Amino acid sequence: MNFKLEITEWFKSLQDSICNALEEEDANGSSNVSVKFKEDNWLREEGGGGRTRVFQNGNIIEKGGVNFSAVHGEVPAFLQNEGQTSSSIKDTFYATGVSIVIHPHNPMMPIIHMNVRYFEMSTGVWWFGGGIDLTPHYVNEEDARFFHHALKTACDKHDPKYYPDFKKWADDYFFINHRKETRGVGGIFFDKLTQSASCSKEQLFAFVQEVGNSFAPIYTALMAKNKNLPFTEANKQWQLLRRGRYVEFNLVYDKGTKFGLETNGRIESILMSLPKTAGWEYNFIPEPNSPEEKTLSLLKKGIDWV
Amino acid sequence: MNFKLEITEWFKSLQDSICNALEEEDANGSSNVSVKFKEDNWLREEGGGGRTRVFQNGNIIEKGGVNFSAVHGEVPAFLQNEGQTSSSIKDTFYATGVSIVIHPHNPMMPIIHMNVRYFEMSTGVWWFGGGIDLTPHYVNEEDARFFHHALKTACDKHDPKYYPDFKKWADDYFFINHRKETRGVGGIFFDKLTQSASCSKEQLFAFVQEVGNSFAPIYTALMAKNKNLPFTEANKQWQLLRRGRYVEFNLVYDKGTKFGLETNGRIESILMSLPKTAGWEYNFIPEPNSPEEKTLSLLKKGIDWV
Repeated sequence: MNFKLEITEWFKSLQDSICNALEEEDANGSSNVSVKFKEDNWLREEGGGGRTRVFQNGNIIEKGGVNFSAVHGEVPAFLQNEGQTSSSIKDTFYATGVSIVIHPHNPMMPIIHMNVRYFEMSTGVWWFGGGIDLTPHYVNEEDARFFHHALKTACDKHDPKYYPDFKKWADDYFFINHRKETRGVGGIFFDKLTQSASCSKEQLFAFVQEVGNSFAPIYTALMAKNKNLPFTEANKQWQLLRRGRYVEFNLVYDKGTKFGLETNGRIESILMSLPKTAGWEYNFIPEPNSPEEKTLSLLKKGIDWV
Repeated sequence: MNFKLEITEWFKSLQDSICNALEEEDANGSSNVSVKFKEDNWLREEGGGGRTRVFQNGNIIEKGGVNFSAVHGEVPAFLQNEGQTSSSIKDTFYATGVSIVIHPHNPMMPIIHMNVRYFEMSTGVWWFGGGIDLTPHYVNEEDARFFHHALKTACDKHDPKYYPDFKKWADDYFFINHRKETRGVGGIFFDKLTQSASCSKEQLFAFVQEVGNSFAPIYTALMAKNKNLPFTEANKQWQLLRRGRYVEFNLVYDKGTKFGLETNGRIESILMSLPKTAGWEYNFIPEPNSPEEKTLSLLKKGIDWV
């Protein structure tokens, strides 16, 4: 089978397995409702399409999306310096991937995001990209260490340089520059991974599969651990403000979102990452020595969580 | 007196008079609390500063800001093609203005925005800019006509071409391209107005003053008219979604916000425009023939409200 189709089929199966795992874990929440992902299949006018799956008002998850897409067409203008030939034949691209954002009800449980993607052009240029990052409303250091340890374990199976390199990349990427805050406790981020003398396409694909497969065990463990933690109305207010920051990151900096908005992507699939509710309060400053102040003090680059 | 200082002082006095008018009208709301603007003075490291005034949890207004600023410094890179000299002496700029966004509690009352500004460079280049636009959660055609009629009246005192030209400019500017929706019912928008054979600097300043002075009578009238309108929980939910669109416009398209974020502006003053709460729901489609559907049908360019 054609390698790009093999990758595509694998991303589809990843979407299936993650949706199943999240539905199963959400059913263990206390409200006893049985929520399933709602699927929308869509076609892109210029070529390809996707399978958007949205989860709303579950026991544990308030709003989440697990999206698969595989699109193709003429290479967009902003990528035309990427190894393009000079012939008059228009180069084409093919892009496929899975994108996830999960917003839980409980402010003591973190928001999570993952993306894994593959891109190739008719010129022969291709690459993998992706990342996972965790955005706690309240930073729990045990959860942050668990999260980073799981990512390091996954990375180390493939290359001992991956975790330190991609952890730093995540610190730099998931950064809200105008707030001088990281979005959360980071994770890993990588882009434009292509073959080299020491690493084949098959090896890179195996790494991306490892990352994709790490998502469900990580987040279902965090769901099970945190789902019954008590919280106050003040905690919910703080959650709104942290979600506001998430909205700021996604609309101002997130490359996937910007790419989607600028290239006439399916808007409801792109913006499924936004929370059900968010808030902004003028110049909110947490109380000294509060959990909110402690969280802000940990939203910075360069913290070693392993 | 130096003209730029005269303009600056007038913008300060405009901030004062608008704050007074809004406080007075808000006190006529039903909850009988007496809320005042909270003032923060700030200095900009590179030169100048501002007077941010924020109004929170009033009777009628939930969250609003009326901000004055006057900043100066070396011309930023993105403006260096605007009539710059080729000498090695760095050109400087001076920018002053008033910016307002008001978010009411009642979903039957519109959000309003106004900006008036003056910019000059040491090269001698200068211009005025500004605009007012109205963003109803539910479009009330009587209010939209009243609003546009007031703006046309103000414009027509100065130039019969202003209203049609600047109304069209507002339709194009206050447009959420990825949603294919206007932000609201528009208003007027203008930029880089400078002197010509038929129009002096004094005449342009008089026009900008007319626009600034039109704000308080327009919005206090809309506050008085709409403050006691009944609404349901479903109306509040819709307000959250419309506020979500407001957030999308401000973070993705608004030039003042983007300029502020990119030039290390005072972040809390820039983002005072964001509502206290906002929301997103996946693929929300209003009921046929509902007020929500009617509102969406009126969020388009080119509607003649006068």
